[in-house]
Amino acid sequence: MRSRLTVDLYVEGILNRDRVILSQAITLIESRLAPDRALGQQVLEQILPHTGNSLRIGITGVPGVGKSTFIEALGQHITSLGKTVAVLTVDPSSQRSGGSILGDKTRMEALSHNPRAYIRPSAAGNSLGGVAYRTREAMLLCEAAGFEVLLVETVGVGQSETLVRDMTDFFLLLMLAGAGDELQGIKKGIMEMADALAINKADGANQTVAQQAANEYRNALHLFPMSQSGWAIPVVTCSAQAKEGIMEIWEMIGQYVTLTKTNGFFNKNRQEQNLAWLRSYLRQELEERFLNHPDIKLQWSATIQSVQGGQELPLSAAERLLNLFFKQADHLK
Amino acid sequence: MRSRLTVDLYVEGILNRDRVILSQAITLIESRLAPDRALGQQVLEQILPHTGNSLRIGITGVPGVGKSTFIEALGQHITSLGKTVAVLTVDPSSQRSGGSILGDKTRMEALSHNPRAYIRPSAAGNSLGGVAYRTREAMLLCEAAGFEVLLVETVGVGQSETLVRDMTDFFLLLMLAGAGDELQGIKKGIMEMADALAINKADGANQTVAQQAANEYRNALHLFPMSQSGWAIPVVTCSAQAKEGIMEIWEMIGQYVTLTKTNGFFNKNRQEQNLAWLRSYLRQELEERFLNHPDIKLQWSATIQSVQGGQELPLSAAERLLNLFFKQADHLK
Repeated sequence: MRSRLTVDLYVEGILNRDRVILSQAITLIESRLAPDRALGQQVLEQILPHTGNSLRIGITGVPGVGKSTFIEALGQHITSLGKTVAVLTVDPSSQRSGGSILGDKTRMEALSHNPRAYIRPSAAGNSLGGVAYRTREAMLLCEAAGFEVLLVETVGVGQSETLVRDMTDFFLLLMLAGAGDELQGIKKGIMEMADALAINKADGANQTVAQQAANEYRNALHLFPMSQSGWAIPVVTCSAQAKEGIMEIWEMIGQYVTLTKTNGFFNKNRQEQNLAWLRSYLRQELEERFLNHPDIKLQWSATIQSVQGGQELPLSAAERLLNLFFKQADHLK
Repeated sequence: MRSRLTVDLYVEGILNRDRVILSQAITLIESRLAPDRALGQQVLEQILPHTGNSLRIGITGVPGVGKSTFIEALGQHITSLGKTVAVLTVDPSSQRSGGSILGDKTRMEALSHNPRAYIRPSAAGNSLGGVAYRTREAMLLCEAAGFEVLLVETVGVGQSETLVRDMTDFFLLLMLAGAGDELQGIKKGIMEMADALAINKADGANQTVAQQAANEYRNALHLFPMSQSGWAIPVVTCSAQAKEGIMEIWEMIGQYVTLTKTNGFFNKNRQEQNLAWLRSYLRQELEERFLNHPDIKLQWSATIQSVQGGQELPLSAAERLLNLFFKQADHLK
């Protein structure tokens, strides 16, 4: 195991905006080892008063939509305005290959050399939907390190959108025109979560179809109720490659922030996110401790087979496993 | 506490299609008392070989869409074909008032006197999204009692749709034309889950707007990928009041069954539902035992306040409560 710093050294380093220590702290909180978890939690508790001051933006879209290019373009624009930006990318494939983590940095080459930017790729780990195990906590560390804008990337194919939606202030869905929705694999539910849709690669010969697609999505969105925030979801076009429409998207996000800070939704949303975070963490942790219990592990695959095949009632199987889990702890029942 | 029968008497009564005993058995499995739970589970285990032979249909829609009238019309049509039908209605408001349970039966007056039909209203209880605590198990009891079609009603406003979707073979979304989507409060995600959309109250002067609405929804659905089942989601109109379009909806459901039984999706879906059922039951049960633990109960509301207000990190709060929960059971960690 690599060596760890003390709590104070982590905290001091983060507050002093030391990127090496920030990266080490994120690695620490991503660790699943018990001593690391305890240490990481102390660090988080100490930096807590210095968090919450960034604008948190979630960005999603299926592979091939141009997320990296878009994030680089948006990040470069934000830093050109004098702001600092931290990019948290999550690579679900890294769960299997472990190889594409470096890819993120090279895909955002200009941004990775930008002194106002910080890029942190994380492995998806085994959490639901491919969001990194501790993306939420990594965001807090970046905030304590003074970053003013956080860009959190997720791949628009699973449950990760809900998770990222629940930890960001603004959620942007990137799409392609003419790729066919089957190909894009965008779930309808994801459109519902978005605060804006941007049709990327709207350049050259592609501009007309991008405009058409934008109109179609506008019509589709029109069918649905206004979001809780009082914000009507815009559908825009852009070209991350040609750096067109990027400034407009940043300004649109600014309008959203002004509106929701004025009508109170911005803070209300963050409060609700804190609660949702508590509950989802509890649920995840309870399930994880259950599934990792040696007695449960032993019986899990046989149970799955009998339940799937209909030989055992899910309810009976569940009760059997729960009794096993709680067997030496009758007071818990 | 009211008196209980023996396991054998419950099982015999259910298999003999004794409605009084069927109702008592559902009451038994809905009970949260430990002895009832044990007894109910034994009953379920014994009737398990006699389950799975019905067609399970979920029906959702916001209050006012005419669900009761629709279910009555569909139920009457199904029984007119010589089939038996069991209706499980869930009233989320009964959690508060306890009063509207009787209302369901009077709202479906003809069906409640139909010898081929059985109506079971259940209180929503405190489970997520207002689905009854044991709707899944109640379905199994009805199947063992020989009912060929199950209609499960849910109110289209919360998480209950996902739960009902996960326990039925066909999921029908009832909508209204001209009510405005804001008024209908239909979440986009619910449309994604539906196997068919039916615009109800398409009668009299309302017919034209109903057709228009159907066309709009067809266009909106067209934007999205084909469902896993290989079934293109139809949008139809009907009038439950005038009993128009009901026969067509029943025939459409028949086409769905033929298609999915032929391409294997029907059984695959049920197998996946069994697994999802196991996992969701485990999750729910772990959370319930956690939240009902006396030490957790004592601290819960103060914790919620400090987390919501940002004074305590959700992660720290969760760890604190988890340590409390598992404190006398260190081997579980």
